[in-house]
Amino acid sequence: MTRSPATATSTGLVTDLYQLTMAYAYWKHGLAEREAVFHLSFREQPFAGSFSLCCGLDSALDFLTNWRFDATDLHYLETLTDHTDNRLFPNDFLDYLSGLRYTGDIDAIPEGTIVFPHQPLVRVRGPLLAAQLIESGLLNIINYQTLICTKASRICLAAAPTTVLEFGLRRAQGIDGALAATRASYIGGCRATSSLWAGKQLGIPVRGTHAHSWVLAFDDEPTAFAAFAEVYPDNCVFLVDTFDTLQGIQHAIQVGQRLRATGHDLVGIRLDSGDLGTLSHQARQLLDQANFHETVIVASNDLDEHAIAHWKSQQAPIGIWGVGTRLVTASDQPSLGGVYKLSALRTSQGEWQHKLKRSENDEKLTLPGMLQVRRYHRNGTPHGDMLYDELTEQSNCAVPMNENTKPIVMDKSLAAEELLTPVMRAGSVVTHSPSLLQLQQRTQDQLTLFGITSWQHRDRGKSYHVTTERNFFDHTQTLLRAAKETTS
Amino acid sequence: MTRSPATATSTGLVTDLYQLTMAYAYWKHGLAEREAVFHLSFREQPFAGSFSLCCGLDSALDFLTNWRFDATDLHYLETLTDHTDNRLFPNDFLDYLSGLRYTGDIDAIPEGTIVFPHQPLVRVRGPLLAAQLIESGLLNIINYQTLICTKASRICLAAAPTTVLEFGLRRAQGIDGALAATRASYIGGCRATSSLWAGKQLGIPVRGTHAHSWVLAFDDEPTAFAAFAEVYPDNCVFLVDTFDTLQGIQHAIQVGQRLRATGHDLVGIRLDSGDLGTLSHQARQLLDQANFHETVIVASNDLDEHAIAHWKSQQAPIGIWGVGTRLVTASDQPSLGGVYKLSALRTSQGEWQHKLKRSENDEKLTLPGMLQVRRYHRNGTPHGDMLYDELTEQSNCAVPMNENTKPIVMDKSLAAEELLTPVMRAGSVVTHSPSLLQLQQRTQDQLTLFGITSWQHRDRGKSYHVTTERNFFDHTQTLLRAAKETTS
Repeated sequence: MTRSPATATSTGLVTDLYQLTMAYAYWKHGLAEREAVFHLSFREQPFAGSFSLCCGLDSALDFLTNWRFDATDLHYLETLTDHTDNRLFPNDFLDYLSGLRYTGDIDAIPEGTIVFPHQPLVRVRGPLLAAQLIESGLLNIINYQTLICTKASRICLAAAPTTVLEFGLRRAQGIDGALAATRASYIGGCRATSSLWAGKQLGIPVRGTHAHSWVLAFDDEPTAFAAFAEVYPDNCVFLVDTFDTLQGIQHAIQVGQRLRATGHDLVGIRLDSGDLGTLSHQARQLLDQANFHETVIVASNDLDEHAIAHWKSQQAPIGIWGVGTRLVTASDQPSLGGVYKLSALRTSQGEWQHKLKRSENDEKLTLPGMLQVRRYHRNGTPHGDMLYDELTEQSNCAVPMNENTKPIVMDKSLAAEELLTPVMRAGSVVTHSPSLLQLQQRTQDQLTLFGITSWQHRDRGKSYHVTTERNFFDHTQTLLRAAKETTS
Repeated sequence: MTRSPATATSTGLVTDLYQLTMAYAYWKHGLAEREAVFHLSFREQPFAGSFSLCCGLDSALDFLTNWRFDATDLHYLETLTDHTDNRLFPNDFLDYLSGLRYTGDIDAIPEGTIVFPHQPLVRVRGPLLAAQLIESGLLNIINYQTLICTKASRICLAAAPTTVLEFGLRRAQGIDGALAATRASYIGGCRATSSLWAGKQLGIPVRGTHAHSWVLAFDDEPTAFAAFAEVYPDNCVFLVDTFDTLQGIQHAIQVGQRLRATGHDLVGIRLDSGDLGTLSHQARQLLDQANFHETVIVASNDLDEHAIAHWKSQQAPIGIWGVGTRLVTASDQPSLGGVYKLSALRTSQGEWQHKLKRSENDEKLTLPGMLQVRRYHRNGTPHGDMLYDELTEQSNCAVPMNENTKPIVMDKSLAAEELLTPVMRAGSVVTHSPSLLQLQQRTQDQLTLFGITSWQHRDRGKSYHVTTERNFFDHTQTLLRAAKETTS
């Protein structure tokens, strides 16, 4: 139902060249089928916020379902050479690729769940070569949709209880970029989109009436409004700022009165420029004076959570917000910066070996093992998360992940939920894809559960406990010290 | 050659709902085939810079070539209703759409040309209904690619004469978003991409060797480097910061020495974290001491023109810059904000009528007419641009577009070039698509012609004259006054 046209063809080449040179080198060294664990996670909450909503999983499953190398892909790979004109990928390796499918397991946190830095949103456990190759595609999909879903939820929180519509097609990054943006925006709380492409492909409700060009196509604004009303008497939301906003509102009211006389009504007016605070108050007054109390004021023009909060602080009587550019580009932070890291690999003897990267920047440290996130609830309310390693024996002790977080005191009143759930086993999807409307409801439920009623929500660990399990924490420290000793 | 998979199917629905409701209403009012002129332009130079490079035209022509409504599109439109459950689009209109193609003319400024605010990058002259419907798709494509091409050129100017590679697939907005980003980055000056998807679809050179996971897949770094060298002895660019960068460089040198002993060499090392200035100096020293003078230092990690300029100010001996996130998201300004406005329409008598929008924000004023940009050259050097209206008789006088610009003094030493050239006539493409390499060369030539040698280039009209033709300027003012009088 949410299948994207870009993933209808083979997606094997939706990857970086270095993934494929590594793949070939793994294959040459007999490591191709060695079982590996990778985690996809992000390092910091976006937008200087205190929560994210993970998103994109169903699109990622589409990508994986179509993950293969077709004849044209292999032909392309045949043409690649290094600077000495040696082929990068010989025929025997291309033969191997031709039959390759993803045959491993994937566990993931369901879309629309509140998540925190360092938690794996997706855990890939499968053959090293294939698990490596799918990195770039998974990151592309999960990074962007998680970012936009989170941004949308912030904007919708700022607007609540009024409605937010997504109008971003013209400013999104490519046609599929726009499709992904619309999907994530809808899950994050936008009620509809302007994009017919997304409407058709994803079944998301569409909204919209007319633009400035409609008004310009007629000799004057009253004629233009009347002409539109003639065709769509039940669908009139007049854009009133083509020439002069207050006069535009008067023209809309005049046409609205004629609509009423024929059993219809003026659905709304739209403001797209100027001081939305003052103009919306003036519009409301004019509409109310003319007895158009139900006519909604729609506002657009470079909106985001900050702008909406600003206009709402002026009690702007705006009922619907059309948000485009700043939502679909996540303008104040246009990337989530998600990463995908190898964290465990079986030895040739079949033993799991933990893997950990140090790097020059401490925040780029990766976490080793086969991670799971346990979310504790107390009396139905989320109390805290514990990141733990399924390969390490567990204690009953949760260590704060940073100085602002308190430990979780384990007692019998805590109910535990494992956040990562199986979505793929041996290469087959084993989960039912919720509808987008169900996912939208889920994000809403999650925000409610966590008591997040404002986009400026700041918990900062004061009541919610983001922790790691003690043995896992100790083991990571030991591995880190060992890595430092080896390299100093 | 540059055909994108997203445009292989019908693209008619790559539009906003309001375009289609307007289309139906035009059709009902007998305006569908009325000849109209729309211009696509932007209002301000992005990145607080002084130039943009227009980009995306060939992708836009793909979009237009596939612009139609297929049976599934029409079936979807059949399902849309307003809030009173009336169908938005009746069958007779859907029948009309089923046969619809774009049959008008399009003129455009060639990709890779230096452009300024308010200049039409694309001029659409065709039937009102179709010209209206194609707006959203054209904006999506031209907005984003112009933004990224401009960003890439800034980054490449900062790096020059060293090389920039584009590594953005994992952080781009969707899979086609990434494809568009790679195309525009290449035209803007990046020499290659990491993306195999773009390599196959667009024929752009691909580059890359290995990631941290390769190193982690082995027991230690020397083993990992040696294992890679065994498979790709002529393609070794070792990523040295998995554990400790300086030690990583030593390990790379050790493997490099063994490569040399067998007739190969160490191509490069890559730094991906830490203080790239200090580390690159240390790396260069270690490599030089070991006689690896030709081994290149590649740097990545959140780079853009600002970061590259910073590292270069420290004389960082970096030969190749891998730029991803901040390029493909244009992180400091993730949208160009291009607009598409109706500027002329024939009356029922066939006379052209100028169209102009005022709005509450002065910068949202649109320019009426059928615009063309004349670029004057003096002795082969661009001297100034004059925006004029083909529907208004021309004077020989060019008025500055803002207070910082000087008028153009017309004399016989000026050679004139019309920037907008025919790319589509009666719905058929009438231009030859240059190769992407030719477009890359063209951006380079344009920067040279304009004397732009730095991303911080500030001309601000001091020597380059951005003007409008006098009669057009006067006519616009008259129309504006008239619009104000009508509405006050």
